[in-house]
Amino acid sequence: MKATVTVMLRDGVLDPQGKAIRHALDGLGFTDIGEVRVGKVIELDLLETDPLKAREKAEMMARRLLANAVVEQFDVVVR
Amino acid sequence: MKATVTVMLRDGVLDPQGKAIRHALDGLGFTDIGEVRVGKVIELDLLETDPLKAREKAEMMARRLLANAVVEQFDVVVR
Repeated sequence: MKATVTVMLRDGVLDPQGKAIRHALDGLGFTDIGEVRVGKVIELDLLETDPLKAREKAEMMARRLLANAVVEQFDVVVR
Repeated sequence: MKATVTVMLRDGVLDPQGKAIRHALDGLGFTDIGEVRVGKVIELDLLETDPLKAREKAEMMARRLLANAVVEQFDVVVR
């Protein structure tokens, strides 16, 4: 199975990278933009073939390594 | 509209960050993993209300700033 873990900063946590991108887009003439948030996406090739178990494993990986629960939230999609 | 731009390295481009994550997961006991690829995701709040136009704008932003077409590919989802 393939698991895609998307990690974003929690709402309310300042996102200076997003602010910088917004500013740069503004400079390129893209002016009608509200907030910009930046996160990371991790695609995992799992040998696990059961979707539920694959999801469980990917969530465990996210909690243990991929996301910092204090300031980040994550979302897992398995396919 | 909200546009989500996902930027990943092209297939065949080495992904040392993915390799490092795979190695770290292995060290945590997650051993049944194939390849790991890492990318970034940019969430844009667009004032544009037409889905087609919003998509077009987000793709233009990706081409002009968010992705480096030489080594990266991107995907846009609008909702």
